[in-house]
Amino acid sequence: MNTLGNTPTDGDLVDWDRDHNLHPWADTAGFGATEYMRVNTADGIYLWDASGKRYIDGPGGMWCTQIGYGRQDMADAISAQVMQMPYASPWSFTTEPAAVLARMIAERTPGDLNTVHFTTGGSTAVDTALRTALFMNKRLGRPNKKIIIGREKGYHGSTFLAATVTGKERFETSFDKAQDLVRFLPDVNPYHRPNDMSLEDWCNAKIADLENLIAEVGADKIAAFIAEPILCSGGVIVPPPGYHKRTLEICRAHDILYISDEVVTGFGRLGHWFASEDVFGIVPDIITCAKGLTSGYLPLGACIISDAVIKRISDAPGDDVFYNGYTYTGHPVSCAAAIKNIEIMESEDILGHVQRVTPHFRARLQQIKDRFPIVGDVRGDGLLGCIECRPDLNDQSYEADVKFGQKLDDACEELGLLLRPFGNMAVFSPPLIITPDQIDDMFDIMEAGMTRVSEGYEKS
Amino acid sequence: MNTLGNTPTDGDLVDWDRDHNLHPWADTAGFGATEYMRVNTADGIYLWDASGKRYIDGPGGMWCTQIGYGRQDMADAISAQVMQMPYASPWSFTTEPAAVLARMIAERTPGDLNTVHFTTGGSTAVDTALRTALFMNKRLGRPNKKIIIGREKGYHGSTFLAATVTGKERFETSFDKAQDLVRFLPDVNPYHRPNDMSLEDWCNAKIADLENLIAEVGADKIAAFIAEPILCSGGVIVPPPGYHKRTLEICRAHDILYISDEVVTGFGRLGHWFASEDVFGIVPDIITCAKGLTSGYLPLGACIISDAVIKRISDAPGDDVFYNGYTYTGHPVSCAAAIKNIEIMESEDILGHVQRVTPHFRARLQQIKDRFPIVGDVRGDGLLGCIECRPDLNDQSYEADVKFGQKLDDACEELGLLLRPFGNMAVFSPPLIITPDQIDDMFDIMEAGMTRVSEGYEKS
Repeated sequence: MNTLGNTPTDGDLVDWDRDHNLHPWADTAGFGATEYMRVNTADGIYLWDASGKRYIDGPGGMWCTQIGYGRQDMADAISAQVMQMPYASPWSFTTEPAAVLARMIAERTPGDLNTVHFTTGGSTAVDTALRTALFMNKRLGRPNKKIIIGREKGYHGSTFLAATVTGKERFETSFDKAQDLVRFLPDVNPYHRPNDMSLEDWCNAKIADLENLIAEVGADKIAAFIAEPILCSGGVIVPPPGYHKRTLEICRAHDILYISDEVVTGFGRLGHWFASEDVFGIVPDIITCAKGLTSGYLPLGACIISDAVIKRISDAPGDDVFYNGYTYTGHPVSCAAAIKNIEIMESEDILGHVQRVTPHFRARLQQIKDRFPIVGDVRGDGLLGCIECRPDLNDQSYEADVKFGQKLDDACEELGLLLRPFGNMAVFSPPLIITPDQIDDMFDIMEAGMTRVSEGYEKS
Repeated sequence: MNTLGNTPTDGDLVDWDRDHNLHPWADTAGFGATEYMRVNTADGIYLWDASGKRYIDGPGGMWCTQIGYGRQDMADAISAQVMQMPYASPWSFTTEPAAVLARMIAERTPGDLNTVHFTTGGSTAVDTALRTALFMNKRLGRPNKKIIIGREKGYHGSTFLAATVTGKERFETSFDKAQDLVRFLPDVNPYHRPNDMSLEDWCNAKIADLENLIAEVGADKIAAFIAEPILCSGGVIVPPPGYHKRTLEICRAHDILYISDEVVTGFGRLGHWFASEDVFGIVPDIITCAKGLTSGYLPLGACIISDAVIKRISDAPGDDVFYNGYTYTGHPVSCAAAIKNIEIMESEDILGHVQRVTPHFRARLQQIKDRFPIVGDVRGDGLLGCIECRPDLNDQSYEADVKFGQKLDDACEELGLLLRPFGNMAVFSPPLIITPDQIDDMFDIMEAGMTRVSEGYEKS
């Protein structure tokens, strides 16, 4: 498999990747110079690199490989659809996989979220959701109601519009955004609240942030609020109890659409198809999803819209067209992969499994906090976890260390476990099929890695 | 394959699609009411609907099914990669398919276009290209050099930013765009030039349009010019000779990046891997591609950036990060499909085949113009074709008819051929494997359809 019909050498592959493949978030100083680890094979919860070394896949691909790797049933379903009919234009036609999957998704969403617009991943699902909110308002004769409220540290993707509502404060970059379309709420991480503040008061403060922003900007200028049920890439931030219900109520009172970005939390990560209602008790206006929808086996995303929003768009005076969609909207092979993925999750009761192993996962996570003084906070829900290094401001005996995540990842990688480092945090979201024994393997390595990393921290 | 484990009936599929699947460009008045034809199986250049009726796939899916349907070698390559390793995060890792494909693409692009950023389709490739142009300028300390010049009728996709530079004048819609980021050049269609104007003068006028717009806006405010080598969705508009070379020269003189959107023309449509240099003699700064890259078998796109642009980004003072990319960037299964697709195109000499059958395709197309007086223009290149109905302004004996495309499509559909209607035009871009006999079958049906449609036109 190469450009000359010969088998490429390891050296060829290193050269070709470095010379020609521009990865997401490549450092501009390292363009054409960075050597990425090459993942070669995968099975179950394991990945193997080019040297044959095995790793537990802590990040679950990129929060996505719910059913694990190496599934023959997935290969068969994908291959069968490729042979039967690999493509049909969604502008003119429908296909059985797209119709069936749209139905399957609608059956699993809360409330009246019954209309599915397929996209090619999470970014395009968010781009579509935001465009739909603005479209609705323009149809309703209020074209200036178009600001989106995002949240600091929230991640929503990488199209121009999805990046615009992404509020990770570390993303100071020369990449441009539609600044006039967005406002951000400050940090919602309960761990960062003042030492003497209760969780309830923190929640009240966060609710007040939203109310104050709406009062400042004017509800007549605000189209939508977008939030992840658990703010994932920003550090697996679990909101204080009642936060989502109260923000939703405020949005409803001001006719601001509530977009729940379930790209990470959807399809089982928290033990439910969707977290919005089953975990947080809310029925949003729009849900976005991707990742777990196919367990990452093929690219697919979806923007799911409530009947109420659809009705407002179609009942508005004058005719228009839903000018959104892609060549690969409802791609029949991607949809067939998603259908098989959902069937596997059902037949193997993967949602129930996640619910059953979550207490063990949480207990092992808590043990890391209890055992290592450099850990400030551990948190998560379902099979989502985060370790945050104790910051300088809370305990002067340890230096604040924004490299903690990378250090822990390096140590664990040597021991056969991959994590995702984020500054002073490391996060993980293993394949949902992980067994209790494998959870122990994962945390055993993490504890060994923590031991090594802890030794490097000096009392100041 | 359904939500209850039973085989869905035809009625179920109609209901589920209508109730739950929001298609691209669905009419707001028809939300939840439109019944789309269901494509069920496909082989070679043929599609079959749910009733078992066979159609020649005139649009080639959506300008994409280059190698045709039902390829066992594609199913095998896809299935093998699914089993070996279906996903790895492009943030942290590389994979053999991504590295090999990046190299294969770079080998086929013109000039110094050697850096590939993989996306999920054409829209995200364009979104990336535009973000990259703005990123470069901000890195170079000229953040106000950010307006994109697009062209009337040009189609570049459906993310917020890609839709912003899409200039199809029929897209008057309540969907919002980043109006401050774009300016459009007027219609470039040579067929629409005044009767007494030479093609050369038309080209001069189109070049003057670009020069005038740059003078009006100021080159210091303009980041990029984006153009399809042949303006496809807007009606297969072949530019006058020299147009691309001259626009490129003007862009270079003003340090405006030239983005060649080869989503349709790339990967063989005109008998070459890319049309920019081989057909039009230009080496652009950025090329976008998708569609033919996988022959539509799986979602994939790419934004290909010149060494010169990469160098300017990385040499600029200060460090930054290429904050663009998706969970499904460089998806190993999509990349494996693209590699096999390119191998098939090479081993079966599909580029040579397109070059060999193009004269016959063009001759049969010309015959339609010669035979039917309601036809005003036929045009195309490679296996791209368009029939444009004679407009009222040129010949008072026939009514101008914006429904011509739909009428011809309806007539041909009955006879077993699918086309793409666009107002007073019908376009087609069949699978590239189409044989001379099959080209005859296609045009025989088109002529029969034209006969029917012509009968409906009354002399005024």
